[in-house]
Amino acid sequence: MSADKVRIGVAAPGSRMEFDIAEATAALAAAIYGDRVEIVFRPQCYESWGHFAGTDESRAAAFVEIANDPAFDALWIGRGGYGACRVAPLVLPRLTPAAQAKTYLGYSDAGALLGALQRAGFQHIAHGPMPTDIRRTGGAAAVKRALGWLVDRTPEAVEPHARAAPSVAFNVTILSNLIGTPHQPDVAGRVLMLEEVSEYAYRIDRSLCHITSNAEVRRAAGLRLGRCSDIPKNDVDFGQTEEEIARHWCAISGIPYLGRADIGHDIDNKIVPFS
Amino acid sequence: MSADKVRIGVAAPGSRMEFDIAEATAALAAAIYGDRVEIVFRPQCYESWGHFAGTDESRAAAFVEIANDPAFDALWIGRGGYGACRVAPLVLPRLTPAAQAKTYLGYSDAGALLGALQRAGFQHIAHGPMPTDIRRTGGAAAVKRALGWLVDRTPEAVEPHARAAPSVAFNVTILSNLIGTPHQPDVAGRVLMLEEVSEYAYRIDRSLCHITSNAEVRRAAGLRLGRCSDIPKNDVDFGQTEEEIARHWCAISGIPYLGRADIGHDIDNKIVPFS
Repeated sequence: MSADKVRIGVAAPGSRMEFDIAEATAALAAAIYGDRVEIVFRPQCYESWGHFAGTDESRAAAFVEIANDPAFDALWIGRGGYGACRVAPLVLPRLTPAAQAKTYLGYSDAGALLGALQRAGFQHIAHGPMPTDIRRTGGAAAVKRALGWLVDRTPEAVEPHARAAPSVAFNVTILSNLIGTPHQPDVAGRVLMLEEVSEYAYRIDRSLCHITSNAEVRRAAGLRLGRCSDIPKNDVDFGQTEEEIARHWCAISGIPYLGRADIGHDIDNKIVPFS
Repeated sequence: MSADKVRIGVAAPGSRMEFDIAEATAALAAAIYGDRVEIVFRPQCYESWGHFAGTDESRAAAFVEIANDPAFDALWIGRGGYGACRVAPLVLPRLTPAAQAKTYLGYSDAGALLGALQRAGFQHIAHGPMPTDIRRTGGAAAVKRALGWLVDRTPEAVEPHARAAPSVAFNVTILSNLIGTPHQPDVAGRVLMLEEVSEYAYRIDRSLCHITSNAEVRRAAGLRLGRCSDIPKNDVDFGQTEEEIARHWCAISGIPYLGRADIGHDIDNKIVPFS
């Protein structure tokens, strides 16, 4: 990280970002850090191609350009949605050593890229708030936390248990979709923190069955469950809470269940630096 | 298969089956085959434990008892829903050689067990209609097709392309949840037929990204897309049809796209004997 000024590049490898998110995030950063921080939002963030913030190639190119530019200290993913898994195979082969020195921050759909980078041996990856979180009620707190960590590595921004043990964090569905691929993150010896949003309980159960059935995942040091928010009501009640589900699959798979993690699709989402 | 009488055992490893499905299916079989066919619906089918047709142990036990009983020619899965993945690890280690001689038929959620059986080397597995299909408008045709195949191996019940090339068939989401687990089916050299129901286009895309990123799956002889029905409308239109999505992932992964398959969550669902 450069001594004087911190330069952060923003790309959106999944869904399109609204321009007002960029404005509000930049204004918040300026209010706190003045000239000390510069945030560059790639025009790609506002592109539109069906579901995505531009074509696969456009999203990959924006990501690669920031990643490989040594003038940037960090690549901050602007928004989740869907699409990071599509660009991961386009991004990974193009990254240079400059990309390895950079910090990457995001969560949700972005986990498809964070997982791929972790698998590829990148050392400075973190699961945490994105600019789009500024839209949530009270969301400035989340974005401020992310900026504090990106700029000053503020310890209080970090998920408490992640300070104590090597950890990684993912969205349940996103990790499920990495299992058995070349981009499956290496969780061996690490605490695996998982969060979910807007998925039926039976889908959380099915995804945890999937994830914990993988032999590599079973080498995790333990599992911590983040918040599972906005679980839709099913016509047959699942009959188990998300924590009962997590405990069940930990018992079946032999992965120690370690309790809750302070992460989720909300303004309290703490930062989990992959370690 | 016994020469005189065909005995079919029905278990429900996922969601609970209604009693009227059993009655209607038995009545249909009696009308067509008289005493030649006996269908035994395990009481477990009507049990209820939260989301499931009984506890994991109860569902596993019913499946294993039919599978290991040489008096049964076939194990017909009564209904999908959700839950087969939970019982697969309880079922597989208990199966005896008698289970290997038996025919297994089902689809949708049942694919989690069919995939596990195929991986374990079982030779008589098929993807096709279940008793629960009798509830669909015109559903008797689907159940009649399944019975015709179970009892007489009627060639016209079989998906046309599956007659010509070694094939397997799965629901997209169910196969995605088997990738990277000990129960991932072996598709090498086989045509992989995939169908889906009630999933957003972006989820079909994500699951196909996942499935086709797996190195073993890339050894498939080709991919055929079954019907993808009841795709919910998303707030951002995905911008690609399901066939465009399938063609995309085939092009990316190098798996030949071979066209459509005559399978799906509907009354026209043809039978795909795994071969």
